[in-house]
Amino acid sequence: MTIPAPFLSQGPLAGITVIDMTHVLSGPYATLILRHLGARVIKIERPCFGDDARSFGPFMEGKSTYFQAINGGKESIVIDLDKEDDRHLLHKLLTSADMLVENFRPGVLQRYELDYVSLHRLYPRLIYGSVTGFGQTGPYRNRPAYDIVVQAMSGLMSVTGQPGGRPTRAGVSIGDMAAGLYLAIGLCAAIYERTLTGGGRYIDVAMFDCQVALLENLLADYTATGVLPQPLGTQHPSIAPFSVFRAVDTSMVIAAANDSLFNKLCCAVERQDLLQDRRFHTNELRHKHVAALTLELERTLSTKSARQWIDCLQRAGVPCGPVNTLDEVIHDSQLAARGMILPISGDATGQLRIAGNPIKMDGVTDAALALPSPDLDADRDRLIHEFSGTEAHTS
Amino acid sequence: MTIPAPFLSQGPLAGITVIDMTHVLSGPYATLILRHLGARVIKIERPCFGDDARSFGPFMEGKSTYFQAINGGKESIVIDLDKEDDRHLLHKLLTSADMLVENFRPGVLQRYELDYVSLHRLYPRLIYGSVTGFGQTGPYRNRPAYDIVVQAMSGLMSVTGQPGGRPTRAGVSIGDMAAGLYLAIGLCAAIYERTLTGGGRYIDVAMFDCQVALLENLLADYTATGVLPQPLGTQHPSIAPFSVFRAVDTSMVIAAANDSLFNKLCCAVERQDLLQDRRFHTNELRHKHVAALTLELERTLSTKSARQWIDCLQRAGVPCGPVNTLDEVIHDSQLAARGMILPISGDATGQLRIAGNPIKMDGVTDAALALPSPDLDADRDRLIHEFSGTEAHTS
Repeated sequence: MTIPAPFLSQGPLAGITVIDMTHVLSGPYATLILRHLGARVIKIERPCFGDDARSFGPFMEGKSTYFQAINGGKESIVIDLDKEDDRHLLHKLLTSADMLVENFRPGVLQRYELDYVSLHRLYPRLIYGSVTGFGQTGPYRNRPAYDIVVQAMSGLMSVTGQPGGRPTRAGVSIGDMAAGLYLAIGLCAAIYERTLTGGGRYIDVAMFDCQVALLENLLADYTATGVLPQPLGTQHPSIAPFSVFRAVDTSMVIAAANDSLFNKLCCAVERQDLLQDRRFHTNELRHKHVAALTLELERTLSTKSARQWIDCLQRAGVPCGPVNTLDEVIHDSQLAARGMILPISGDATGQLRIAGNPIKMDGVTDAALALPSPDLDADRDRLIHEFSGTEAHTS
Repeated sequence: MTIPAPFLSQGPLAGITVIDMTHVLSGPYATLILRHLGARVIKIERPCFGDDARSFGPFMEGKSTYFQAINGGKESIVIDLDKEDDRHLLHKLLTSADMLVENFRPGVLQRYELDYVSLHRLYPRLIYGSVTGFGQTGPYRNRPAYDIVVQAMSGLMSVTGQPGGRPTRAGVSIGDMAAGLYLAIGLCAAIYERTLTGGGRYIDVAMFDCQVALLENLLADYTATGVLPQPLGTQHPSIAPFSVFRAVDTSMVIAAANDSLFNKLCCAVERQDLLQDRRFHTNELRHKHVAALTLELERTLSTKSARQWIDCLQRAGVPCGPVNTLDEVIHDSQLAARGMILPISGDATGQLRIAGNPIKMDGVTDAALALPSPDLDADRDRLIHEFSGTEAHTS
């Protein structure tokens, strides 16, 4: 089969075809990553509206910028699962597919005999990935979930926020996107394994599980000490100084995570007196006296601008940086050099920017432009033509 | 070669050997995921201290619980890179390795001719993954970074926190762990590609890039509208009601992301009057009047406990949940059913719990116990014996 020119790809997954029955964020984020790595992603959308994210504002030239950010380079075809002809067409696509990815509630695709067990019989090499709020098993399996539900239930929200303050949501949908990342790992591992076994796999990823997997040391610490972790603002639970500090004009971050860096920091800001202070001799002591240490450091930091201090500390080799807002992020020179802030090919406004691929590989050139996301059903005729000779299994 | 019994694995990466030259979190998290998927991970540690994370408290029976949470099931051997014999031993290990993963600052391993270019000449099939703060290229490539630096510089911190409040760090080190996830994806994709090409790849992942890749719709929205996104506490930037609400005893989350769910919510809490209120007719209007809507909902929610409302809303099919603290997380029945909260094999205290593997695959049974993390250099004699017959390349 000839893959049409716009979808030719370099990257380790070039030649892999993904049937993408996902919507909104967790599933679409997984398939976006596969697309970045070179896979072909054919997005199956419901009639009339397509992916719910197409209705998420703001809009540019009538198109959702939200949808644009998550679906670049995918193809789109509308499939009405209630119509036999459309199901037949879907099976034509599945015949040459390597993966199916979906994020419906458990049981939904079974009604159409599109669950893993049904499809594995027809396509034993198909790798099938599902992402749901709580997974395919367990007492909560049928519960609906959105990002904020799993951020709250996992404990992440209980440790995010200002000390003594209200619970706080991480400002992006890490509940969805983390699940997309874990699913992408599972799919890539399974496609490797298929080269040995010849067979597909079913991968079942739950947003809730993934948030818990990201709790770092919190489960171990809590079960070791019995002390409930608390929100700490920008403080680190065990390292100091490692936080946001106020300079004369704005805030900045300093992360002096060990004695050597603390030494460099004190010398760079000409506060060698702090090195003599018994309260600050070790990281443990600095962490115990973090309020006093912050006061001392901010007394000095408040005499110059954050930019001046950052330049000074960078020369001294102390990890530090600005607390950037989005206007600063899009103009960052490192992100430009890394191809991480991309205009979109064919964007008539010239204004939009989305993130590039953070998985850099030797021999794979970074795209200078992001591929546009497809209009609803945009690739229907071409896909029908391309797969017209394919013999579909009967569903 | 016979793999010793404790390291026999099921999972898609069974048979893959990873030489793990990582420390602290970003790199070790990537190799932990590979281990969960069945790979064998041989951790190379520096003399005397080993991985810095071994010194992070709290400690149980003299061992770091932090280290325990991130290094389960890995083997440990001390290699002094300044000693020729030890470098020779490392090369013996590399001879049969599939991947090398490292998170040193750019250039450090080059001094020992252990960079990708040097090793690719000797081991053309070796896949080599590096994770650093800012990547191997670009103007910031030599800058040090810790989690909080990239949370701040990426813009994530600027949208996390209470409205009008101080910038806030997500309460776990998502800057490190996200980079570990993307690196794991790159490594798995590359091992698949190697089955086609026979050759290794170099993968260069930057914590900073990865944070930017997780900005969801923020780059697109900001460049579309010119409006800087702000911290919103637990509110969603475009959906309402989708936040934390106060019941009589404690807080809870409700996520009624569309008209149908809002309808179910109002009926379940017997506030059908809200469905008649012009301010709340559409999601756009509800979002515009979110303060009034919250007041109305909390007037009712404050009459019963969070537990009562959650039961009521779950029966009605409205996504909702508790804002759990860690003591609630470790006793959650869904996480128990999914094998996500695990005791550690051989833990004499019986007390510690760490997270399980969130990538569930058919045919791979969840572990009932997590594998312990290795003591420093614990596997030296066995590894030397195992690889004694191997002819090392000269470095």
